[in-house]
Amino acid sequence: MRIKALSRPLSVLIAIVSSFMIIPAGIALVNGEQKEAKVFFSLIAVTFAVTGAIFFLSSKWKTNKLSTREGFMMVVLGWTFSSALGALPFYLSGTIPSYTDAFFETVSGFTTTGATILTAIESVPRSMLFWRSLTHWLGGMGIVVLTVAILPVLGIGGLQLLKAEAPGPSVDKITPRIAQTAKVLWYIYLGMTFLETTLLYLGGMDLFDSFTHTFGTLATGGFSPKNASVGHYDSAYVDGVITVFMILAGVNFTLHYRLITGKIGGILKNTELKAYLVIVAVATFAVTANLYQNTYDTVSKSFRYASFQVASIITTTGYGTADFEKWPEFAQLILFSLMFIGASSGSTGGGIKVIRLVTLFKLGINEMKYLVHPKGVLPIWIDGKSIKKDMAYSISAFFFLYIFILIITTLVCASTGADITTSFSTALATVGNIGPGFGKIGPTDNYFFYPDYAKWFLSFAMIVGRLEVYTVLIIFTRAFWKK
Amino acid sequence: MRIKALSRPLSVLIAIVSSFMIIPAGIALVNGEQKEAKVFFSLIAVTFAVTGAIFFLSSKWKTNKLSTREGFMMVVLGWTFSSALGALPFYLSGTIPSYTDAFFETVSGFTTTGATILTAIESVPRSMLFWRSLTHWLGGMGIVVLTVAILPVLGIGGLQLLKAEAPGPSVDKITPRIAQTAKVLWYIYLGMTFLETTLLYLGGMDLFDSFTHTFGTLATGGFSPKNASVGHYDSAYVDGVITVFMILAGVNFTLHYRLITGKIGGILKNTELKAYLVIVAVATFAVTANLYQNTYDTVSKSFRYASFQVASIITTTGYGTADFEKWPEFAQLILFSLMFIGASSGSTGGGIKVIRLVTLFKLGINEMKYLVHPKGVLPIWIDGKSIKKDMAYSISAFFFLYIFILIITTLVCASTGADITTSFSTALATVGNIGPGFGKIGPTDNYFFYPDYAKWFLSFAMIVGRLEVYTVLIIFTRAFWKK
Repeated sequence: MRIKALSRPLSVLIAIVSSFMIIPAGIALVNGEQKEAKVFFSLIAVTFAVTGAIFFLSSKWKTNKLSTREGFMMVVLGWTFSSALGALPFYLSGTIPSYTDAFFETVSGFTTTGATILTAIESVPRSMLFWRSLTHWLGGMGIVVLTVAILPVLGIGGLQLLKAEAPGPSVDKITPRIAQTAKVLWYIYLGMTFLETTLLYLGGMDLFDSFTHTFGTLATGGFSPKNASVGHYDSAYVDGVITVFMILAGVNFTLHYRLITGKIGGILKNTELKAYLVIVAVATFAVTANLYQNTYDTVSKSFRYASFQVASIITTTGYGTADFEKWPEFAQLILFSLMFIGASSGSTGGGIKVIRLVTLFKLGINEMKYLVHPKGVLPIWIDGKSIKKDMAYSISAFFFLYIFILIITTLVCASTGADITTSFSTALATVGNIGPGFGKIGPTDNYFFYPDYAKWFLSFAMIVGRLEVYTVLIIFTRAFWKK
Repeated sequence: MRIKALSRPLSVLIAIVSSFMIIPAGIALVNGEQKEAKVFFSLIAVTFAVTGAIFFLSSKWKTNKLSTREGFMMVVLGWTFSSALGALPFYLSGTIPSYTDAFFETVSGFTTTGATILTAIESVPRSMLFWRSLTHWLGGMGIVVLTVAILPVLGIGGLQLLKAEAPGPSVDKITPRIAQTAKVLWYIYLGMTFLETTLLYLGGMDLFDSFTHTFGTLATGGFSPKNASVGHYDSAYVDGVITVFMILAGVNFTLHYRLITGKIGGILKNTELKAYLVIVAVATFAVTANLYQNTYDTVSKSFRYASFQVASIITTTGYGTADFEKWPEFAQLILFSLMFIGASSGSTGGGIKVIRLVTLFKLGINEMKYLVHPKGVLPIWIDGKSIKKDMAYSISAFFFLYIFILIITTLVCASTGADITTSFSTALATVGNIGPGFGKIGPTDNYFFYPDYAKWFLSFAMIVGRLEVYTVLIIFTRAFWKK
C-alpha cells in the first residue's frame, strides 16, 4: 500500500467534493444564513489549500498506476473521507451539534441511504438542507461510475456490468475507457436531473424543493427537506413523477445509454430489467389490492400510494407518501420482502440487486436439474449467454456475506436495546441503503435515538452495503495485507 | 414415475409407523382411555389390512429398483403419508377436532419441529400425548437415516455426509450399505434414548414424562406433555440433562458412532463439530452475561437458563425453561440469530446447518482472496480435504432457496394479518423445524390462531425444511417430470 500513490487521487476527489459546496454557500448568502455561508466558504478555502498542496507535492513523487489493492483502498477511503469532510458543514455550523450524528447523516447522504437523525427537518437552514440533498446526488453519481466503470476493472464481478477492458459474458461495453464512460454517465445523470426538476417545478413545487427532491430520487437516496417527505405535497402529480423517476433510477445506467442511442431492441431482452419490472408490477398489484380492500376507498388512490411505496422501497430510495406501518400486515410484508431485493446493478439503487437474485434462482433450479440428471452439463443462461462458474461463485458468496452482515448489524442494534423488528429492519435499511424501515425506524421516525457506537457501526454498514460488500470487507482480510 | 414401484416401500413404511401405535394403545388401556384405545387399535387393524394387501399384491408386480426420481418421491410421500396417518388418532378420538390442526400437529411431530396448536396440553389424554411425542422420536430417527444414508445416494450433496457407495471429499463411511448403516444408527439412537430416560427418571421425573421428554430431546423436536414445557420441573438437574442431550442430538450421528467405536482422534478435528461447539459456547457466554446484567441475580442461574435456551434454539428443539421474550433484547437477538444457523448435518436438528454456513463463510473469504490474487487457485478446505466446486454450488443454491422459502412463508403468514416479527419468526421456526419463535408464536404461545390455509402451508414449509429443501422442491420442477 503506497500512501503517496493514494494521496493524489484522493486529494482530487476531496477537492471536487468541496468545490460543490459553492452551491449551498451561495444559497446561504441568498437566504441570509451568515454563519452557514462562512462555514462553507472556509471549508472550501481550507480543503483547496490542503488538497492543492498535496497535489502539488505529489506531482514530484514517482508513482505508478494504482494496484488492485490500492484501488480498493482508494474507493473505501474516498467514500469515508468524503463523508468525514461532508459532515463538517453540519457540525461546524451547529446544525447538528454532535459530530457522530453529522457523520452518520453525511454517510447516509453519500451512500444514498437516506436514514436521518434529524428530528425537525424544516427548521434546518436552507443551505444545510441543500448540502444534505446534494450529498445524495454526488453519491449517486459516484456509485454509478464506480459500479459501471471502476469495480469491474478491480475484478468485482457478480454483476451484469461493463468490464471496461476485459471481454466476458457479462460485458456490455459503453465505451472502452473509464474516463469516457464516466462522462457519458454524467450526461445521462445531468439530463435526468434537469428533466425531473423541470417536471416537479411545473407541478407547482418551488425550485429548491424540486432540486432537492430530484437529488433524492435519482440517487435513490430519500432525504427530503420536508418532515412529511413527499407526502408533504399531497399531489398525485408529484407522486407520479417521483415514482417514475425512482423506477428509472433503479435501472442499470448502461441501459439508459442504450435507450438514448436508439439501441432499444436489446433493452427489452435484458434479463435484469425484465425481472425488475415484473417484481415492481407484481408487488404494486398485490399492495394495491390489499390497500383497496383495507385502507383506501378508490382503486386509483390505492394504486397511487402502492406504486409510490413499492418503487421507493425496491429502488432503496425511502421516500414516503404514507405511513406504511399503518397499512395492513400483508402490504407491509411485501415491502419488507422488497427490502431484500434492491434495484438493478449499475443503478444508483442499493440492496442485493435483481440480477444476483435471478442468477441465484437459476442456480437453485439448476441444482435440482442436476439431481435428476447427475451427469448433465447445465449452464446458467443470462441474457442469452452462459454465466461463468466463477461468477456464480462470486454471487453466491456475496449473498452469504450480505446476510451475514445483516445479522451482525441486527445484533449491534439489539445490543442498544432495540426490539427485533427495529433491529432487523435497521440492518436491512442501512446495509441495503434504503433509509426507513419498520418499528422505531419507521417512515415517521428517525435514527436519532441510537447511541453513538451504533451510529458509527451503522455508518460502517451503510458503506459496506453501498460498496458491494467485498470492496470494504476485503480490507479486513489477511490476504489483502500480505506481501 | 411408477406408482406400483413406490407402493411397496410406502406400504412397508406405513405399516411400521402404525405398528408403533401399539405403545400409546397400551397406555390408553392402562389409563382407562377407552375411546383412545379403540381408535389406536382400529387404526392398526385397518392400516395392516390395507398395507398388507398392497404388499401382497405388489409382490407379483415386476418392479426394478427405485430410480432417483422415485427415490425423491418416496421420501416426500413417506413423510406426508406418515403425517396423514399419524394425525388420525388425534382427529378420530376428538382430541383435536379439526383434521387440519391434527395434520399440522403431526407434521410438526414427524418433522421434529415441535410447533403446537394445542392450547391446554395437560388436559389431553395421556395416550395421545405419548403418541404426539413418539412422532418426534420416529421422525428424528427417520431423518438421521435419511440424511446419513439415503439422501447421499440420491445425490443430495452439500452436506458433510456419508455417501454410502461413492467415494469423495465428504464421505465418512460408517458401513457401506444403507441397511447396515441404518441399523447402527438405530442402536445409537436407542442407547441415547435409554440413557437420557434413565437420567431423567433418576432426577425425579415419572416414567411417562421421562420418555416423552427424551423423545422431544433426541429428535430435537420440542413437544412436551407440560404446558410450561421443561420449565414445569424447575429443576437445575433436569435442565442440565436435557441441555447436554440436546447438544448431543445436534451432533452428526456418524460422530457418535466413531465415539463409541473409540475413534476419538478424528472427532476433535471435525470442522463442523468444532464450529458447532464454538457457536454454542460463544452464544451461551453472551446470553449468560446479558442475563446476569439484567435478569437473574446469580451467574449460575443465568448460565443455566442461557445454556438451555441456546442449546434448545441452535439444535432447533424448541423446549423452554423461561419466557425468553421477557429477556433483554440482546439475548433475544442472539437466539434469533441462532435460528438462522441450526444444528449439524446428519443430526436430528434442522435449520441451515453449521457445515453449510462454514463452507459459505470460507467461500466468501476465498472470493476476497481471488480479488487480490485473480490468478490464484484457492480451494476451500474442510476437514483437511478440498471441497469440490459442485458441492460449493449446491450449498450456495441451498442457502438461497432456504432464504427464498423463508420469505415466501413470511408472506403467507403476513397474509393472515400477523405482524412482521410473528410472520418472519414463524417462517424461521417452521422451515428451520424449531417450533417456538417470537411475537405471537413466542415460547408461551402456540400456532392455534393461524387460519387453516396457513396451517396447511406451514405444514408444507416444515416438510420442505425437514427434507433439506431440494428433496421437496425438485418435485415442482419441470425437469423432474420430463421423460
